[in-house]
Amino acid sequence: MSVPIYLDYNATTPVAPEVAEAMLAYLREHFGNPSSDHVYGRRAAQAVAAAREAVAGLIGAPAGSLCFTGCATEANNLALRGVARALRESGRHLIISAVEHPSVIGPAERLRADGWAVTVLPVDECGQVDPQALEAALRPDTVLVSVMLANNEVGTLQPVAELAALTRPRGILLHTDAAQAVGKIPVNVDDLGVDLLTLAGHKFYAPKGVGALYVRPGTSIEPLLVGGGQEQGLRPGTENVPHIVALGAAARLAATSLVAEAERLQGLRDRLHARLQAAIAGLRLNGHPDQRLPNTLNLSFPDVTGRALLDAVADSIAASVGSACHEDSATVSGVLAAMGLSPARARGAVRLSVGRFTANGDIDRAADVLRQAHARLSARD
Amino acid sequence: MSVPIYLDYNATTPVAPEVAEAMLAYLREHFGNPSSDHVYGRRAAQAVAAAREAVAGLIGAPAGSLCFTGCATEANNLALRGVARALRESGRHLIISAVEHPSVIGPAERLRADGWAVTVLPVDECGQVDPQALEAALRPDTVLVSVMLANNEVGTLQPVAELAALTRPRGILLHTDAAQAVGKIPVNVDDLGVDLLTLAGHKFYAPKGVGALYVRPGTSIEPLLVGGGQEQGLRPGTENVPHIVALGAAARLAATSLVAEAERLQGLRDRLHARLQAAIAGLRLNGHPDQRLPNTLNLSFPDVTGRALLDAVADSIAASVGSACHEDSATVSGVLAAMGLSPARARGAVRLSVGRFTANGDIDRAADVLRQAHARLSARD
Repeated sequence: MSVPIYLDYNATTPVAPEVAEAMLAYLREHFGNPSSDHVYGRRAAQAVAAAREAVAGLIGAPAGSLCFTGCATEANNLALRGVARALRESGRHLIISAVEHPSVIGPAERLRADGWAVTVLPVDECGQVDPQALEAALRPDTVLVSVMLANNEVGTLQPVAELAALTRPRGILLHTDAAQAVGKIPVNVDDLGVDLLTLAGHKFYAPKGVGALYVRPGTSIEPLLVGGGQEQGLRPGTENVPHIVALGAAARLAATSLVAEAERLQGLRDRLHARLQAAIAGLRLNGHPDQRLPNTLNLSFPDVTGRALLDAVADSIAASVGSACHEDSATVSGVLAAMGLSPARARGAVRLSVGRFTANGDIDRAADVLRQAHARLSARD
Repeated sequence: MSVPIYLDYNATTPVAPEVAEAMLAYLREHFGNPSSDHVYGRRAAQAVAAAREAVAGLIGAPAGSLCFTGCATEANNLALRGVARALRESGRHLIISAVEHPSVIGPAERLRADGWAVTVLPVDECGQVDPQALEAALRPDTVLVSVMLANNEVGTLQPVAELAALTRPRGILLHTDAAQAVGKIPVNVDDLGVDLLTLAGHKFYAPKGVGALYVRPGTSIEPLLVGGGQEQGLRPGTENVPHIVALGAAARLAATSLVAEAERLQGLRDRLHARLQAAIAGLRLNGHPDQRLPNTLNLSFPDVTGRALLDAVADSIAASVGSACHEDSATVSGVLAAMGLSPARARGAVRLSVGRFTANGDIDRAADVLRQAHARLSARD
């Protein structure tokens, strides 16, 4: 049985061979607990330190500013709720965008339930926040702004550096969920001007089950989990050494190949887009035409639902109608709704995301399969 | 260079070959996101479901009652703070023991800072809680009792079933941190009568970075992390599929070999104890003489500190003076202090914990090395 072409790299990626190779020794041979004061422990601690250097290096941060977590969801929770807790006597207003991931919206909702005020910034039809809207929303009691770097569904990039230019002079902290951006585009915490940044291993060829939060030195934050002293007390719990080693290897891999690979992926993506555009009248691109992740293509197909189209091609193509995190929900994507898409257009959306193992032949075949299936389905209606 | 004999299985374990084998395919081949509605996602979801069955089976629980987490620390935080949040209108008193792990003490301290009342039950010289002391501590506003099943430093088992006989009729929830027990001794949630139970993969041959919380169906609990809907909404974040698969394989391994292996380990441990006892006058066992984990030997050596003794044998033996989670602290173990040990005896303590890859020859050599080093060090004083 042939396997479907995988066009769902924004949902998750396979572990790169170099990354798997790097982590294997830390399952069996170098298995120590990094907190143990003997050679097994020290070897593990050294590996964690080396990985911290590599991951921090990928985002232009000092190693000591990086806190490893169990996933990006945990990092986002830590960022929002850890800062809110640390600054609860300074102010209880926070600002997020309307297209954030559920792991930012969720913590914001929990804070709202606990008495914080939350402002949700709207986005334009491309999915971007307007810096002027942020400026208008800032209040004397605003302590934190959280706006993602790249959207998971449509790939739109946010003007994070412009937002930082508004928050920094006012002493307001800025967090960006860069889970979809790190490893796909160059990311530098100083260029962005952010105080906190979330990244996710499984979005760039490390395994699922590891993420990190960058915390600019001096930032007020309290731990979300409490217990032992690991990660400078910011994230207790025995370190996931093999996955942290893998994250370091993935960071090194990205650092060496990111720019060329981004160009290659953008070429593949645009080739897929062009082929479908030429074949299907009324096909619409969702997201920003060029301020967008190089690997992400969110298209609304006319006269069909995205779900029906993907079901029809399931033997040949694996993609999604939106975020994997709410794949089971029958409702329209909150991201597309926030962008003002009509319900019909939103229901016709399919997210096609390419990656490291996508080849030219995959693109041509995927375009053919989608075109044919769309023709069949829309003729039937 | 020869590697030191590893006698620190309570700090962490190597991944068993069978376990590593099981998880590898989920790094590269079956890499899907379990939330994805395509064949890659479904294969991953099926693997997670199978692992859930296996882990739940090991503790006599239905699969649906198990929530996977990133570590036992997270599971303990979720248990204490998730229940406290869910029941905050019912009562704000909780009870823990004096020998809990920092990941139980920490959440209890945070709840205390947030207005909850916390009672800490004392332990006797063997490290056990007295059920009568629990009964006396129960209050009308008590919502949760958390007492570990087996202590990480001395291995003492707590009378958890007797504690449950006090909490259950009163409708008070009982949590047990069984991180050190699961995989080492038979554990059954119904025999114990607990409502919540924490387990840790890396204590029984799965990798660091995965744990689970058993939640008896119907138990009031709110999530600690908020975000997507994974783990029935109790623990959002993309699942750590390879580690969860590994945890399932480790559970199956434990289920088939636990009783025989526990006997073997107890034999090794008692042989080590007997050899040292015969050679060193004034050697003292810490912990309960028989209500104790079969693999754990905590000994106080006379006239030396445990740290100095372990430093002297560091080329030959890897062990610890207590929990890996506060190895860097210069203070005396809180567990040994709670048991009423004198500071001198507490400072002389060494934890020797054996496991799956410990052989007879390791024990004999370790006994010789420790005996000789102790003779040298105590003569020097």
